[in-house]
Amino acid sequence: MQTGPQPADFADVRATNLAVVLRHVRAHGPVSRAGIAAATGLNKATVSSLVADLIERRLLRETGLAENRIGRPATMLVLDGSAYAAIGIEVNGDHLTAVAVDLAGEQLLFWRRAFTGRVSAGVGAGRGVSAIAALAGRAASRAVAQGRQVLGLTVGVPGLVDEAGAVRRSDALGWTGVDLRGDLLKALRKPEFDVAVDNDANLAALAEQRYGGHRGARNLIYVAGETGLGAGLIVDGRLLRGGRGFTGEIGRLQLHGGTLQELAGIESLIQRALPDADAEGPITDFAPEVERVAAAARAGDAHALAALRDVGRHLGHGLSLLASLLDPEVIVLGGYFVPLTEWLLPAARAEMTATDTGGVTLIGSAIGPGAAATGGAARVLDALDAGVLPTLTA
Amino acid sequence: MQTGPQPADFADVRATNLAVVLRHVRAHGPVSRAGIAAATGLNKATVSSLVADLIERRLLRETGLAENRIGRPATMLVLDGSAYAAIGIEVNGDHLTAVAVDLAGEQLLFWRRAFTGRVSAGVGAGRGVSAIAALAGRAASRAVAQGRQVLGLTVGVPGLVDEAGAVRRSDALGWTGVDLRGDLLKALRKPEFDVAVDNDANLAALAEQRYGGHRGARNLIYVAGETGLGAGLIVDGRLLRGGRGFTGEIGRLQLHGGTLQELAGIESLIQRALPDADAEGPITDFAPEVERVAAAARAGDAHALAALRDVGRHLGHGLSLLASLLDPEVIVLGGYFVPLTEWLLPAARAEMTATDTGGVTLIGSAIGPGAAATGGAARVLDALDAGVLPTLTA
Repeated sequence: MQTGPQPADFADVRATNLAVVLRHVRAHGPVSRAGIAAATGLNKATVSSLVADLIERRLLRETGLAENRIGRPATMLVLDGSAYAAIGIEVNGDHLTAVAVDLAGEQLLFWRRAFTGRVSAGVGAGRGVSAIAALAGRAASRAVAQGRQVLGLTVGVPGLVDEAGAVRRSDALGWTGVDLRGDLLKALRKPEFDVAVDNDANLAALAEQRYGGHRGARNLIYVAGETGLGAGLIVDGRLLRGGRGFTGEIGRLQLHGGTLQELAGIESLIQRALPDADAEGPITDFAPEVERVAAAARAGDAHALAALRDVGRHLGHGLSLLASLLDPEVIVLGGYFVPLTEWLLPAARAEMTATDTGGVTLIGSAIGPGAAATGGAARVLDALDAGVLPTLTA
Repeated sequence: MQTGPQPADFADVRATNLAVVLRHVRAHGPVSRAGIAAATGLNKATVSSLVADLIERRLLRETGLAENRIGRPATMLVLDGSAYAAIGIEVNGDHLTAVAVDLAGEQLLFWRRAFTGRVSAGVGAGRGVSAIAALAGRAASRAVAQGRQVLGLTVGVPGLVDEAGAVRRSDALGWTGVDLRGDLLKALRKPEFDVAVDNDANLAALAEQRYGGHRGARNLIYVAGETGLGAGLIVDGRLLRGGRGFTGEIGRLQLHGGTLQELAGIESLIQRALPDADAEGPITDFAPEVERVAAAARAGDAHALAALRDVGRHLGHGLSLLASLLDPEVIVLGGYFVPLTEWLLPAARAEMTATDTGGVTLIGSAIGPGAAATGGAARVLDALDAGVLPTLTA
């Protein structure tokens, strides 16, 4: 298999440099053409031509502000957020979250909807797929009604997603072999925008890399404390995908006493912290139960505190394995772990120190709910940053 | 931190395309200019110009053979192995291995030398560094005497090597904080060739990717069964490095009963398989002891067979963790594990199947001794394939 560079032509040079300018303005705008030239090493005439192209594509706009310095005042450039939108949808066992952002990173919408897509007696995956497609369609219509062109949609699913966007297996949803990308393309009637499906933890890791407390980190692991336990792995600046796209399955790590899912998954935590939790049947909505665990811990409840210590310790063990293998700078706990970090983090850090991996920064996510949806939208922006630029179709 | 593309210019296009042609001839030569154009999508005039450049740099040569087809016979091109050499040196606790290859992949030399660089009472790391530098100097002189230009030297060390080529820690050598690359540059008196230092398992993984039984695999893990237990991780076609360059430290994985090094390291295996092994003091030369373990197992010795089963099972557990996290296609056992694969592989595979990661191909390395040295030379070739082309200095 060939793994090296592909043949390049002069159009590639231009696409690369357009992306370089776009990224520079994203990181440092407002900035003048001369400032871009000085920072990127591109010459001024090239920068002027690239900027003209980006303005025409409505990716940049002039602000009219002037830099205060010797010589003529310069026209400043910022990202143009008005023309495009990127949509991310996060699928959970009990709800969907949709996020749309513009190219300047502003959030255009944030919707949370109840979701009954989990396969159960008499209900197949089809109903869930229809609900996702309907929400995607409504989000896209909203963007279009605002005069925006939708650049892409990414759906994050808790489970194993292959390269073609099919969900091979999702324990959280009870799905097996669902061609989600294909079904969405059909339901959305071959939309003009790009549609992708990815693992939720992968997308949340991208969101952390772009918007999180350690944004820009080149070695970052995101641990998704959702119904299932998964991780998004960013190493050397890139999201790892692996042979089939199934990296980061930390819930399946076989440890002494069980899998990490059994030892430190959110369901196990609730059951141990709240001995009465499933008295009325299996838990279907985890958020209120997690809140009860936090309340019990705050009140000093011995059951809850012991369960949190225990889960934190197991998590720390699992994370020490990740740290020994992947040498991350930072590990971010997300999802249902976020309201519990006050108790989980100290126990996890102590375990990591005991296994000689205490040097890694371990924090809770500050992105808030819908991290995978935000990451789904971020994935579309990442494509821009890599040089895949849109052309206005309207 | 900026992680996207860097500004490009037309020289980059040419460098990229030179590398594309070089790699095509490496993979498919002998091949004609027209064949290169057809396969790469570059136009014929561009290919002719690129080929002329590569011939001038003595990276390609014409063979004079003709393709048998309609029309004029075409001049065929192959790699020119005669002008350059790449050198790799592997450092082990008890010996050094030096390998030199030409650009066509032919081995020019293979030297194995006893090595007493392990720090002990009264002996610092300096003596070891001098021995490595002396061997590197002799290998380079040999190449020069053959009329070749040395393109690069890579030294593989068992331990933690940082980005600057300093050995932060090597338990196998007893080294801490040795600026090996800096010391080599001094000892070699600022050589004209590139000098790099890397972890030995990383280099062996590159060798497997280029020359091994599963060459070309984009997701491959190499497990170095040397005095220390480490792994080289290739995911999505790239070697993982991590925040400090310390990926793949599988010996440090904390499992039930101890670290993987304690449970499945070669020293522990020998001690359990041969209860008399360290009767005469600590083992300093492992190869004969490993041969004794293999002989005992072949003779049906119960101690040896039980120890191999046990170590295979622990290895399988460690590899199942790697598989759940990184989704590799193939895992290659190397080093001292190679003569023991007959017994280790079945036990390891059974354990992986039990932990639901049995789908990964697990094999012994077929590269033979000095895999890290071979990989060190391969690293130099990888730089060529990525477009860093040499200019003849003589």
